[in-house]
Amino acid sequence: MKSDLDILMQQYALDAILVLGSATHNPPMYYLTGGGHISNAFLIKKPGETGVIFCNDMEREEAARSGLEVIPLGKYPWQEMLQQAGGDSARMAAMRLKQMFADCGLTRGKVGLYGHTDVSSTLAMLTHFRQLAPEIEIIGEPRDRSLVMLAMETKDEDEVARIRQMGRITTEVVRRVADDLTTRPIRDDQVLVKEDGTPLTVADVKSRIKLWLAELGADNPEGCIFAIGRDAGIPHSAGTPTDWIRLGQTIVFDIYPCEAGGGYYYDFTRTWSLGYASPQAQALYDQVKSVYERVIASLRVNTPFKEYQRLVCEEFEKMGHPTLLTVSAPLEGYVHSVGHGLGLNVHERPWSGLTAEEENRLRPGVVFTIEPGLYYPDQGLGVRIEDTYWVRPDGVIEKLADYPYDFVLQMKQS
Amino acid sequence: MKSDLDILMQQYALDAILVLGSATHNPPMYYLTGGGHISNAFLIKKPGETGVIFCNDMEREEAARSGLEVIPLGKYPWQEMLQQAGGDSARMAAMRLKQMFADCGLTRGKVGLYGHTDVSSTLAMLTHFRQLAPEIEIIGEPRDRSLVMLAMETKDEDEVARIRQMGRITTEVVRRVADDLTTRPIRDDQVLVKEDGTPLTVADVKSRIKLWLAELGADNPEGCIFAIGRDAGIPHSAGTPTDWIRLGQTIVFDIYPCEAGGGYYYDFTRTWSLGYASPQAQALYDQVKSVYERVIASLRVNTPFKEYQRLVCEEFEKMGHPTLLTVSAPLEGYVHSVGHGLGLNVHERPWSGLTAEEENRLRPGVVFTIEPGLYYPDQGLGVRIEDTYWVRPDGVIEKLADYPYDFVLQMKQS
Repeated sequence: MKSDLDILMQQYALDAILVLGSATHNPPMYYLTGGGHISNAFLIKKPGETGVIFCNDMEREEAARSGLEVIPLGKYPWQEMLQQAGGDSARMAAMRLKQMFADCGLTRGKVGLYGHTDVSSTLAMLTHFRQLAPEIEIIGEPRDRSLVMLAMETKDEDEVARIRQMGRITTEVVRRVADDLTTRPIRDDQVLVKEDGTPLTVADVKSRIKLWLAELGADNPEGCIFAIGRDAGIPHSAGTPTDWIRLGQTIVFDIYPCEAGGGYYYDFTRTWSLGYASPQAQALYDQVKSVYERVIASLRVNTPFKEYQRLVCEEFEKMGHPTLLTVSAPLEGYVHSVGHGLGLNVHERPWSGLTAEEENRLRPGVVFTIEPGLYYPDQGLGVRIEDTYWVRPDGVIEKLADYPYDFVLQMKQS
Repeated sequence: MKSDLDILMQQYALDAILVLGSATHNPPMYYLTGGGHISNAFLIKKPGETGVIFCNDMEREEAARSGLEVIPLGKYPWQEMLQQAGGDSARMAAMRLKQMFADCGLTRGKVGLYGHTDVSSTLAMLTHFRQLAPEIEIIGEPRDRSLVMLAMETKDEDEVARIRQMGRITTEVVRRVADDLTTRPIRDDQVLVKEDGTPLTVADVKSRIKLWLAELGADNPEGCIFAIGRDAGIPHSAGTPTDWIRLGQTIVFDIYPCEAGGGYYYDFTRTWSLGYASPQAQALYDQVKSVYERVIASLRVNTPFKEYQRLVCEEFEKMGHPTLLTVSAPLEGYVHSVGHGLGLNVHERPWSGLTAEEENRLRPGVVFTIEPGLYYPDQGLGVRIEDTYWVRPDGVIEKLADYPYDFVLQMKQS
């Protein structure tokens, strides 16, 4: 939680954290500012202090809403400093950064760097900074153990309420998609058609999903997966826009929108077959569903997440599917992890891979997905079931949005 | 243009470029892949070669659509390499990167780094990489002269067609907003109301804008500015969501959506006053409009962009407004630059600031905005007019979308 930041800074022996970039679509900056129209900002926070945000003069009022101290970048005379830097804007940026640290009372020490922003200009600035201010060491951290990612790993009640609300919006959109598909007319060759009699395509479905998300106040920065037939068998294929929607083919529908302006995400998947399913597809679905239920029934607070990955691999292996237990990068069978944390990032700590560290646990406050799946692209088959769960402060694990698990969606005669 | 990349690499003495991150909302990666569902990828391109993309095994089919050679990351055994790296994932990432370069035939030389992605894990990886592979120097570049930004500065016909189409969508949405506002009922106190008789708010207007953009197939990752009254006087205030829409107040409406999936942007601003305007507001508008027209009339191919910034400053100074010519960071008057290039970034080369380098010229192929404005927040006044222009290959400068310049929008009696 955000309240853990100061303790984490002590543990990491950091004298400050430095966050770069905009407040939108930049989880660390959003986390510390609450979002808003702030671009290309610098945020410096020392332990025990609220933090200072250095931003474009024009964005000072937006930045002030964050509750942080605001210093407009106009304080640092660009033109003069650029002359001093011999016209090199990267060197000028480094000089200015050194001055910003000084204005926060920091002239030496270790600083952790965070942010989702332009890596090229950041590297250019830091290269000069190392020469200009060798007493201040700016360090990066691998994503799996980044201080900000560690803080974000557990959510407070307000964050969970926002994710739950995104769950409501997400499942409402899924419901509308199911209603829309099952009430469409069907051509002789089992293809769903639009009002004008032409085939309904994946692109058509996605454009409705986008519209409904916007209508319900959500953003969809990463798109969604609506993959039918062979595409369903490729876990991260987003679907081919021109594909037609046909009866009796498996559809993997994975949707992961976030709050408007780039806030908290939800993550959800259902697999459908319209009208009917082949016995082979139904059998595959039943296997995934039974493993999904097995995992849900065994979830316990504080367990290392990867234990469930192992469980899922073992169950699928027993059923004869290749998994990561026996193949290092399988192309069919069970080819991914059982889930991931989610929050301001659609994928974040805790991680569930077999190689994830033990501390990736289902601790109280963690919000995570469970999403077993099986994929056989050459047979045109893929199945995944995914819901988002929360470990409550009392240790009870709660699903954040309900939705039925029907595989075959019956077509309604109109 | 993309076809300039190889020449630019020669000029910059680069043996390769390395692009990091996802293909969406990451302009350099989008530029080289064409977008799509590709996350956390590595792209290495040497001069004269198409380039290789290293991506998640699950995203191999999406990545193949880019036309680049695809190497799934599964080729590099994560678990073994992590053991070799003593469990340090940043060191492991550096080892893998060294191997990727080797697989592209690169064991020494200078490599330019690009991408909009996580700076923390990137810095951690690069710190290890410097030790592991000192023969390969990975360098960053300041944003104002980055190789990729230089290539992007001029657009080919296909790119211009896409920006023009975004211009059509943008002005269509603006038209709908104007129609919606001018046909609303008005309360006795001059406040516009909704169907249920409650006041129409900035949040209501923005939610309609979002919906219409989604309906027309555009993304709105950066939101928009709809600022009324005092907010209109603060150039980058996005507007206060709870503000009511009243007659006779200046409204700055700045809208900058992009293609679905994070592609090309458009940028457009109009300033309105509903029903009537105060003489003071009308006078300010007329001044901005006259300076806008003066600039447009004087635009000539190959001129340094900053000459127009100087022109606008001089014109506004003559009218008695403070500008950047005389004040280093003015809070009122003319407080920003006259425009910027746009493409996959809403702001990119060429830059028009007084300190921008001469090479920021209106060269053939450049797409840019012209957006003079005047701001007096304490008087509740702000005016900006903005359109997007293209320097055609024949040197003629063309506006990419037409829209009327009315300041006072007459309310239609319903």
